[in-house]
Parts: sequence; C-alpha cells; structure tokens
Amino acid sequence: MSERRALGIDIGGTKIAVAAVDSAGRIHAQTSLVTEAERGFGQAVERMLAAGDEVLARAGWTRRELCGVGVGCAGPVSAQRGVIDNPYTLPTWSNCDIVTPLRTALGKPAYLENDADSAALGEWFAGAARGASRVVMLTLGTGVGGGVVLEGRIYRGVRGEHPELGHMPIAQFASEGDAAPACYCGTRGCLEAIASGTAVAEAGKAFGWDDSRAVLAACERGDANAARIIERVKRALEMATWTVLHTFMPEVVVLGGGLGDAQFELWRPAMEACAARATMVPVGSVRIVKAELGNDAGLAGAASLAFSEAC
Amino acid sequence: MSERRALGIDIGGTKIAVAAVDSAGRIHAQTSLVTEAERGFGQAVERMLAAGDEVLARAGWTRRELCGVGVGCAGPVSAQRGVIDNPYTLPTWSNCDIVTPLRTALGKPAYLENDADSAALGEWFAGAARGASRVVMLTLGTGVGGGVVLEGRIYRGVRGEHPELGHMPIAQFASEGDAAPACYCGTRGCLEAIASGTAVAEAGKAFGWDDSRAVLAACERGDANAARIIERVKRALEMATWTVLHTFMPEVVVLGGGLGDAQFELWRPAMEACAARATMVPVGSVRIVKAELGNDAGLAGAASLAFSEAC
Repeated sequence: MSERRALGIDIGGTKIAVAAVDSAGRIHAQTSLVTEAERGFGQAVERMLAAGDEVLARAGWTRRELCGVGVGCAGPVSAQRGVIDNPYTLPTWSNCDIVTPLRTALGKPAYLENDADSAALGEWFAGAARGASRVVMLTLGTGVGGGVVLEGRIYRGVRGEHPELGHMPIAQFASEGDAAPACYCGTRGCLEAIASGTAVAEAGKAFGWDDSRAVLAACERGDANAARIIERVKRALEMATWTVLHTFMPEVVVLGGGLGDAQFELWRPAMEACAARATMVPVGSVRIVKAELGNDAGLAGAASLAFSEAC
Repeated sequence: MSERRALGIDIGGTKIAVAAVDSAGRIHAQTSLVTEAERGFGQAVERMLAAGDEVLARAGWTRRELCGVGVGCAGPVSAQRGVIDNPYTLPTWSNCDIVTPLRTALGKPAYLENDADSAALGEWFAGAARGASRVVMLTLGTGVGGGVVLEGRIYRGVRGEHPELGHMPIAQFASEGDAAPACYCGTRGCLEAIASGTAVAEAGKAFGWDDSRAVLAACERGDANAARIIERVKRALEMATWTVLHTFMPEVVVLGGGLGDAQFELWRPAMEACAARATMVPVGSVRIVKAELGNDAGLAGAASLAFSEAC
C-alpha cells in the first residue's frame, strides 16, 4: 500500500502544533504557533491553515494529496459534532465548529477529538501501544487524563463522552484522618486529586516546595516528607492500574504526560506489581509501557483519524 | 421479521436451567435439573439435551427450527474455545468442551459465555437495559460479578477475558485501622470483599449473625452494628458506581443478584447520587436500574447468542 498523507493539529492552551504525518505515523514536518485564543477562533483557524501550508511545503506535499486533517484539542470538545467548547483554557472558544472551516478550506474531510484521546490514539497508531487491540493510556501532567483505544477506535461512552480516567476514585474510603483532596469532578480523592502535577505541588506547599519538580527533587535527595507525597502518588497509580485491569482489561497500559513518562521508572514497579499480583488477569498478558511519542502523540493520533475514516 | 427460536442453558453449581427462548426474549418453556457435576460432564450434557427436547416439546418447537443453542456457565470458561474449566464449583469439569457435543447432537451452532456475561447480555436483550448501547451490569450475590455489553456485544479484554468488576478496588487506600478484607483476586478491599453476600455475612459473624439476610434484618430493626455493615456496602457500591461512570461511562447500570436486585431500594439512592454529582457525566444521561429478569437473564442472554451470531 502506498504512503497516505494527512495533517495533524494539536491545540493546547499555550500553543498549537501542526504537522504533516504519513500513514506509517511518521512526521515529515511540523511547526507550532502560540495559541492566543483570545485573539479569536476564526483568526486561529486562518493561522492553522497557514501553518498547514507551511508544513506541506516543507514535506514536499500538496493539499490535494491529503486524506484529510485531524485535530486534537484540549476539551471539552464534541468529537461527534466537530465543535470545540472550551472557554476555560481557550478563552472565547465557546461552541466553535472547527471541522467545517477546515473541510471547506482544504476540500478534505476534517475530524476532531479531545487531546487525551488523540494522544492515546497516537500511541496506538505509531507509539508504545502500536497495533494492540486494547489500550488504556493514562496521562499524568498538570491534570490526569486518559484515553481508551479498542481495535484502533477511541472508546466512547454515553452521548459520545469519553472515559474520564483521571477521576477514577482512589481514596474515597479513607478514614477522615487521611482526608482526601476534593476535586471539581464532584468527589474527593480521585486519581487527579492525588497524582496530578497540581496535586503533588499542592501537597508540597506545606513543606515549602513550589511545584511537583521540587517535590521530586527533594524525594531524590532523601527527604522523608517528599518521599511520603511520592509514595502516595505511587499507591494511587497502583490502585488506578488495578481498576484499569479489572474494567477494560487491556493488553497495554501506556503512561504518559510530564509526570508520567518523564518519571516512568518511579511508577513502573508499583504498576507492574499490580498486573503480576492480579490472579484474574492472565499471567504475562499486560504490558505497562512508557509513552513513546511525547508531544507528537496528539499530532500522530489526530492525523490517524483521517487514515481510519477517510482513506 | 418472523420469530426466531433458540435454546438457552444456564449452568450453575447447584442447578442447570434450560429454556426455549424466542428472538423477542420471551421464554416459552423452561425446566431445571440438579447439576450434580461430579456425576460427570458427558452425563450432564446428555441430561441437558433431554431437557432441551422437553422444553422444545412443551413450546411446540422442533430442533430443526432452532437458530442454535447458547450456554451461560459459572466461570472460569473460555468463551472463545467453548470450553468450561471450572472444577471449583463444578467438580470434575476441567477443560470440558461443551459446544462440540451440543452442536453435534443438535446440528446447530452452539455458543458459550460465562454466567455473569450471559446475564448482562440477557438484561440488554430482554430486560432492564433493553436496547441500550452501553450497559454495565453488577451482580451482587454470594460473590460480585459483572458484565459489560457494548452495542449488544459482550466486552472482552486481553486474551478474551472479561472484566472482573467484582474486583474493582474500593478500600485499598484505607488507613490500617480500617483494614480491608483480603480477596483471592490478589488485593484487599475490592468490591466483592466488602459488598458480596459472603462479605456481609462475614462482617456479621462478629455480632452473632449467620448470613447476609440476618444482617439485613437486623439493620431493618435499627441495630447500629448491622447499619454500619450495610452503610459500608452502600459506600462500596457508590465508589464502584463512580468507577463505572468514569471508565465505561454507560447509559445504564443494572444492579442484579440476590443482594443487588432484591435490596435495590437500599442501594439505589447512593448510586443515583453518584451519577447526579459527577460533573463530567452528562446530566440525566445515566440510568441506575434494577435487573428485571432475575434468574431468567442468563437463559435469555445465552439464547440471544444464537440470534446475534447464527441467524
């Protein structure tokens, strides 16, 4: 089969990345622009199209050759309607249809997914979970996100919503002395409330650390308070792994995100011990792996939508 | 479309039920026999076939009219290979291929699923979750089982294994004073270890109650110790619901099993409160329902395999 070509776009609160991606998941050229969402959605679409032309030119490709364009964007988004509705981290972008202007300008199919799903899809398409039929990705960054890819398709729940793996319950049952932090999701002690970069930073404040990096550094120096915070993250990840194994029972669990893949060796033993200890999970059937593509996962995953859906 | 016909068989440790089921999920005739697994697998298959002929005769159907036969059986089973491998509750039934002798005798396709999955499928096919595209069923009985039905198909994980929802973690994070019971699944404080009939009975022993029914009765009389045990089950179910909502994000959560559907009103408020409180679950999108089919769910679900796979 000859190489197919697509554009992948990854929209975050700070920057927008645009890449020329082939059907083997290789990125031939990429560029990025500042998001500056408040300058307006229409203006941003124009800049994305210009960036698309730039990467096409650098790759030696033309718009006509494209299967389509895929967009991964910080949610909330409606993948089904192709609409970004995220005034929270993309100020002024309420109810913005992104697939219509892209499709109209390029004359090619356009697709939208939220960024956690497009990253998971990217790791399945071209990264650490390549070709696995059941994949769960957990992304530990500022928050905790996740995506589930079954037979190469993003899993969707009721009304097209995606799983919210960052909000799996972890410490709800803890006794009061061990009170778990509250979360905007509506409960206390969910995975994000314990294991996100924000939660680690928050826990570190009491000891004078400014961010999760400082807590990690202190832990490495042997500080007992920092070690306790990190231990708590480990236990939360262990419990989240147990949940993932006994719900989706995937072949591959991918850990990504700044706090996830960068500190992978810190978390891996606890997660692997889970898989080894679970008597109902077939022995040796589950791999716990580090995300391979980093920030490129969203680009590869977004582009892959055009290959699976359009050509 | 005209009515199609199948046999459904539900194999438990104590009894085997056999029914003539139509493609609308109606049971036209059913019978049951004692399992007496130790009398041998071959002998049991003969008795199942005789029972099948009996229900066919009572329904006024013939073997020739059947789409096929579906079997739900207490696991472990391999649905993919059609093999029962459960010497634990079906003594002597190790590595027993049930689909070949049924297929040979009837000249029709035969299918096997574990009983939790066939019950979930039955509730989707003809019960409380009829027609919903994403269904999670939790069965609270002696143990806690569950099944996930997506677009009318049983969800399978790695190596064809099904989710083990009874072993979602609940109280692993609890401090030591609140030490959670250990489970054969390899962890402590999973759903089954807290919310199963066995776990309730175990917790009740300290206060002189013999089984879960006695604990429930004492709770109804206002006994504070019994209320504490029941409250613990409620909280476990609440946390399990939170997990289910943020992983599979289903339209319908079906609660079944002796302790589940019989005591549904006891658990419902806590489960519904979860769905109402979860900010990431679309408002009003999830229904928490009581299983409708009771013991017939497994029969209907098993038979439905023949309709979805064979004709």
